Amino acid sequence: MARGYCADLPDFEAQRAGFLNGTTTPSALLDLCLANIDQSEAAVRAFTHLDLDGARAAARQADARYRAGTPLSPIDGLPIAVKDIIDTKDMPTACNSPFYSGHQPRIDAACVAAARAGGAVILGKTVTTEFALGLSGPTTNPHDTTRTPGGSSSGSAAGAAAGMFCAAFATQTLGSILRPAAYNGVVGFKPTHGALSLAGVHPISHSHDHLGAVGQNVDTVWRLVQWMAQTAPGLDASGLGLGAPAPVEAIRPRRLAIARPSALQQMDTKSHAAFETCMQWLRDQGVDLVEADQDPALADLVARLNIIPDLSGQMVAFEMRWPYAGYIDVAPDLISPVLHDWVARGAKVSLAAYQAMLAERAELRRRVARLGQVYDGVILPVAPGPAPVGLASTGARELQTYWSFLGFPAFSLPMMAVDHMPFGLQLAGFAGGDHRLARHAKWLMQTHQGI
Amino acid sequence: MARGYCADLPDFEAQRAGFLNGTTTPSALLDLCLANIDQSEAAVRAFTHLDLDGARAAARQADARYRAGTPLSPIDGLPIAVKDIIDTKDMPTACNSPFYSGHQPRIDAACVAAARAGGAVILGKTVTTEFALGLSGPTTNPHDTTRTPGGSSSGSAAGAAAGMFCAAFATQTLGSILRPAAYNGVVGFKPTHGALSLAGVHPISHSHDHLGAVGQNVDTVWRLVQWMAQTAPGLDASGLGLGAPAPVEAIRPRRLAIARPSALQQMDTKSHAAFETCMQWLRDQGVDLVEADQDPALADLVARLNIIPDLSGQMVAFEMRWPYAGYIDVAPDLISPVLHDWVARGAKVSLAAYQAMLAERAELRRRVARLGQVYDGVILPVAPGPAPVGLASTGARELQTYWSFLGFPAFSLPMMAVDHMPFGLQLAGFAGGDHRLARHAKWLMQTHQGI
Repeated sequence: MARGYCADLPDFEAQRAGFLNGTTTPSALLDLCLANIDQSEAAVRAFTHLDLDGARAAARQADARYRAGTPLSPIDGLPIAVKDIIDTKDMPTACNSPFYSGHQPRIDAACVAAARAGGAVILGKTVTTEFALGLSGPTTNPHDTTRTPGGSSSGSAAGAAAGMFCAAFATQTLGSILRPAAYNGVVGFKPTHGALSLAGVHPISHSHDHLGAVGQNVDTVWRLVQWMAQTAPGLDASGLGLGAPAPVEAIRPRRLAIARPSALQQMDTKSHAAFETCMQWLRDQGVDLVEADQDPALADLVARLNIIPDLSGQMVAFEMRWPYAGYIDVAPDLISPVLHDWVARGAKVSLAAYQAMLAERAELRRRVARLGQVYDGVILPVAPGPAPVGLASTGARELQTYWSFLGFPAFSLPMMAVDHMPFGLQLAGFAGGDHRLARHAKWLMQTHQGI
Repeated sequence: MARGYCADLPDFEAQRAGFLNGTTTPSALLDLCLANIDQSEAAVRAFTHLDLDGARAAARQADARYRAGTPLSPIDGLPIAVKDIIDTKDMPTACNSPFYSGHQPRIDAACVAAARAGGAVILGKTVTTEFALGLSGPTTNPHDTTRTPGGSSSGSAAGAAAGMFCAAFATQTLGSILRPAAYNGVVGFKPTHGALSLAGVHPISHSHDHLGAVGQNVDTVWRLVQWMAQTAPGLDASGLGLGAPAPVEAIRPRRLAIARPSALQQMDTKSHAAFETCMQWLRDQGVDLVEADQDPALADLVARLNIIPDLSGQMVAFEMRWPYAGYIDVAPDLISPVLHDWVARGAKVSLAAYQAMLAERAELRRRVARLGQVYDGVILPVAPGPAPVGLASTGARELQTYWSFLGFPAFSLPMMAVDHMPFGLQLAGFAGGDHRLARHAKWLMQTHQGI
């Protein structure tokens, strides 16, 4: 289970080398994606909308550019999909809500426009939970269709796992990139908060919304996110190694902090054993792993992590009054009880409490930044275990919330397995340290797959 | 000309006292607004849409609340208008662009929802320049209808000056709150960048867009902005004196820095004389005014201000590719040549240059913050003179751009006059110093009107 989740689709890095030397083409890669869609989509249900004609036309244009030796970008010819809370000018964007049923945006979101400008081949729109926070969609987990794919970026992660595309846009407010990536055994990357433009992405929370990606491996996901940072950046893109060469250089982390917040008590025995095996493997590779009882500053951080899920929940609830209270105002029946509950929770959060949480976040960011001087990253499981059975719940989000609150970069790496289901390792970094973190993520995956 | 620009409309503070003690009502105040609209709207053209029935109904509801002794907020019964780049669920929002002709948003912008929740009486939508940056609208200056009202918040400022409402929402990316406020002789307030939620406000530039207000006096504008900060805050609302009592306490500034950037060389003799007279008046009131040649740190700041208009222009052009390049992509003929030029300018700004400008801004913010330890504010004219003749251009924006770039709070105060036209004093503050600045603004206006 340590490799091969996207085994049906060849590595984009290698494919791109083939595009450049003429041994294969973007259209040939697209055909592999389409074959996987044919084979799995009926069971996985990753897509809300497929645009096969558009994808084929885009791939043919990419073929011609590579033939002429003039690819547009490092992602030219990359088959991708777009989470359905992200605007597309040529496909509906319904946010999995009857409020936006059939809604057709007039222009692309900034990230979609940037992907098109780079020559990416957009296959379609992927299933999200309702507005990325409410009711679950129909997507299943391709490793076991009785299990949840996680959420809210359900279709992006499940489709990547089923080899339907090499990467997909995903978003995370609390845990919506890392959790589905972990459950489906693909790489997920949530860059620094504010690294990428969120223009045209349906909002939940100004303080917590992140745009990122899921996909077949670190290089592919990194290429996509880095291209976004270069062409559709937010105000905090400086950590994205702009101008740095791709593929990412694999660099062994020297010292990692292990975080064991109290939410880990939910872990079952097998998941716990898988995590400890992974930790021992890291030590065997010569990585210095530090536990909280060896470092008071780390112990302090871990203790503070425990308050984050509640703070994040309150901040998100407070901020989401717009637009959700507005939707409920004009069309209460089109918004699920889950979102009614969120808005009601937000109405109980006082301004003073909200301001205090913003201050707490600023303080916690300063403390974690100091840890960044000592550690190359913080590691912990992405979730308490593999994807649970059933589709109504998309799983527990506490463990992914910490780095959403902090706004620092984090990867989900498919390095563990429990009962033949993928189980993700969370590699979490520090302010502006996206590129550094990607190099460690690359090393972890590359070295682990080599054993 | 030092007072009385809104003389046709009584002070909302006094009116509200009357609402509370039963001597007048919100409906009676609304009637005064409607009379001024009847008298002036044909010449001033402040509105794109009037909702008189809606306003009357809202005022009657406010009447009932005051009668019952249960006003909703400090702005209950306040007659306001909304710049037409801000979404309203019951009125079209066309951004003065054929691209959005007749566009009807489904929900209110966050600020509009908050104003309604506070009981404000919304009279209608006010004229903006095209998307707050392109072609000018039809609005004229009520002091002289052959002159521009300034832009882009043209209708908000002109309507306030003509007594059509007590205050209005306005936005500023480069100079669009302070300049029209100055040209029309009303108070304009641009709070700290990020103080108020911009949700539902049509965007230009993530780094520069500000929501604020224009209106009859410091108290009214402050009440409106502070209510927004309390009910629809952004991530940086902590400077808004949350929980502080209204009306604002008037406090004399002890020491103000005078900034004379090179753009002031555009000033004519009369405007220069008006500014110097105002400076002498301040000295006569015992305020310590410091010139750049008396303080090297101030001289350093003033020298650096000169580069800001170019930096701001490039940053705004870079960021506005979304959505404007998208609009041009799908409907080029519906977007004016002015905006085509802006987008073309942005396409020439490299990512490295953009990142360098963000870093320059961060550095300049640190330098200006240090000045905040010495000074209570920085003063300079809002514009090189009063409103120019003609409606095609909305006037020169350089002098308003500095504090837009910095993201710190700034007021336009109608304290000067040239040739019987209003001429605004800019009182600019420091990070998080909105409330402090408002108290000095109140003192300036109150003391000046007392002479």
